[in-house]
Amino acid sequence: MPKISRKGMQMPESPIRKLVPYAEGAKKRGTKVYHLNIGQPDIKTPEVALNAVKNAAISVLEYSHSAGFESYRSKLSAYYKSHNLPIESQDIIITTGGSEALLFAMGTVMDTEDEIIIPEPFYANYNGFSTASGVKVVPVMSSIEDNFALPSIEAFEKLITPKTKAILICNPGNPTGYLYSKEEILKLAEIVKKHDLFLIADEVYREFAYDGLQHYSVMNVPGIEDNAIMIDSVSKRYSMCGARIGCIVSKNKEVMATAMKFAQARLSPPTYAQIASEAALDTPKSYFDEVITEYKERRDILVTELNKIPGVTVAEPKGAFYCIAKLPVKNADDFAQWLLEDYNFNNETVMVAPAAGFYSTPGVGLDEVRIAYVLKKEDLVKSVQILKQALTVYNN
Amino acid sequence: MPKISRKGMQMPESPIRKLVPYAEGAKKRGTKVYHLNIGQPDIKTPEVALNAVKNAAISVLEYSHSAGFESYRSKLSAYYKSHNLPIESQDIIITTGGSEALLFAMGTVMDTEDEIIIPEPFYANYNGFSTASGVKVVPVMSSIEDNFALPSIEAFEKLITPKTKAILICNPGNPTGYLYSKEEILKLAEIVKKHDLFLIADEVYREFAYDGLQHYSVMNVPGIEDNAIMIDSVSKRYSMCGARIGCIVSKNKEVMATAMKFAQARLSPPTYAQIASEAALDTPKSYFDEVITEYKERRDILVTELNKIPGVTVAEPKGAFYCIAKLPVKNADDFAQWLLEDYNFNNETVMVAPAAGFYSTPGVGLDEVRIAYVLKKEDLVKSVQILKQALTVYNN
Repeated sequence: MPKISRKGMQMPESPIRKLVPYAEGAKKRGTKVYHLNIGQPDIKTPEVALNAVKNAAISVLEYSHSAGFESYRSKLSAYYKSHNLPIESQDIIITTGGSEALLFAMGTVMDTEDEIIIPEPFYANYNGFSTASGVKVVPVMSSIEDNFALPSIEAFEKLITPKTKAILICNPGNPTGYLYSKEEILKLAEIVKKHDLFLIADEVYREFAYDGLQHYSVMNVPGIEDNAIMIDSVSKRYSMCGARIGCIVSKNKEVMATAMKFAQARLSPPTYAQIASEAALDTPKSYFDEVITEYKERRDILVTELNKIPGVTVAEPKGAFYCIAKLPVKNADDFAQWLLEDYNFNNETVMVAPAAGFYSTPGVGLDEVRIAYVLKKEDLVKSVQILKQALTVYNN
Repeated sequence: MPKISRKGMQMPESPIRKLVPYAEGAKKRGTKVYHLNIGQPDIKTPEVALNAVKNAAISVLEYSHSAGFESYRSKLSAYYKSHNLPIESQDIIITTGGSEALLFAMGTVMDTEDEIIIPEPFYANYNGFSTASGVKVVPVMSSIEDNFALPSIEAFEKLITPKTKAILICNPGNPTGYLYSKEEILKLAEIVKKHDLFLIADEVYREFAYDGLQHYSVMNVPGIEDNAIMIDSVSKRYSMCGARIGCIVSKNKEVMATAMKFAQARLSPPTYAQIASEAALDTPKSYFDEVITEYKERRDILVTELNKIPGVTVAEPKGAFYCIAKLPVKNADDFAQWLLEDYNFNNETVMVAPAAGFYSTPGVGLDEVRIAYVLKKEDLVKSVQILKQALTVYNN
């Protein structure tokens, strides 16, 4: 029998995959499961996007340009400019989700065994993309005590070797909800400039910033035009996760020419989804105002309620729609499984994502979980009540 | 300034990319260009697929399962079974085009510097996927003299090293149009079985077989269930290139479990396109009968007309919609450029794909071009007339 690759064997599994059969089991027993574990928002997709697809006059569903529709790229450039990001259409390649943009970025700037520094905890699929690209993740630890703020310059510099090619950040952060300040981004700019590294910024949650805070993009930093690569996506902005449309953005012409060769090999991003994404740019501002207000209220309720549980510490999220909570348990993985397998409160339970899967350092974050606030407020309140009761039962 | 990767520098460019500016120049001068260079069919997409998307009741455009809609996978399994391919839904992972299926297959079975043997000439993007995966392509030469039939077992075995992990074929072939016989597939089965290799078969043109010939799939070979990986796509079957839906198929459970980890990292294939692809399975048989008849007629006209040109040799295509023609020129690349840059016949010219880009052995196929018969018959006739006139002028 032929053997699969070492790379394939090393590909990580999703942090919640192990729990899925238990969630299915709970549902089979008639227990309602509140899903705090996923990033699939319940927010409606803008009608302007859905209608554009309904009304598209297509007789042959053709390939698009490998970089995406020219019309979409230029409208997207205008959108970015209106948000104060100096991005031209030639700085953009449309990709199949932010996922493909990350794969193109890694392939473009990194070779096998090169190193990429990522503040941890980080989006678990960065591990998958790195393994698939043959690249080594070097984590730099951030801490729940200061809400997962940027680690110090010294902490980064200690990890830089001749094999280091890039620093990757997610801003605002999944799973932390942390929004990097302008000062923190400028610190990173200084490091990448000094050490000739790329700075890859996954900014797919850019619009989700609360408390009047402003998102500061790597595309706004003067002097690192050749270092900065921005990853974007329509998935969260327009609640269009299933479209699978994102983009890779850079002012570095060599980076864009190289990413374009990866784009050409796979021919084109999906046509229907590009029609929806281009039309989504006409979404009225009121949509975002409502969505941001809704998420802010959800966050406030979630954090307030979680803080009422004895022994629970929550990192205050300032953006995106996740937070990390430290629970009074030894092993959050076991607890999450127990919640699904052995517990219910009036026939309801919750599913959370154990946070250890978001760290690449073994043994860290064992008592932490990631909670996504993608449910409506009353469900969030109920979920936290269940969690509170469950912790009492579990610890007795 | 940070440096891009060696991998990025090695990524090949599309064989026709160099010619694109010349084609644009010709159009600017008012010259009509017949595109014999591309695989984008002019055939209409089945209405049942387009209507399914128009009528889909979507309010939140959600992620699908990472393996694709369960409903689509089981309907696809039924489709395969009706075509005599014993494929269950758990043997299928839906991908973003055949392209992603190839990337998953390579990632699943090959590590950096592993070798994959491919009969050349081959689909140029195999080079791109191999480079992106850090994998080395080892070409085994097939020849226009016998219509690009399968090279001998000895030719394959000479190339097998401890690093060889797989043989990749395209059947029917792009760019050759060659349809492997059952005997040839059985020969390949013998080699992969004997040497414990994977046999990756890109069968996206499966339905396009002419002259009453039957396509014989690697999924039909008894005894190589653990070796065989089939790549498929809706792009050509339903003229839905822009959907970007394909799949990876295997009976090898370890292969599927590993490919699934690659699939999970990128979350899901595009939702709209899956709706269209699932509905496309209800396309009436009459659609295919008409399409195959149309392509067969196009092939006959193209080959007949090309054979009338003195000094031109054509490999008789039995499947897909391409053929390789050897021209009485020294360098088909220069000739193709000249056609666009310096030539017109009554203000019309043709664009062909120089075939050297489909070989990985340097200096081979220099006098060959790939011609796609994706234009209507009168345009094909005109195109060949232009080619004939052009050759006379070029060679004087």
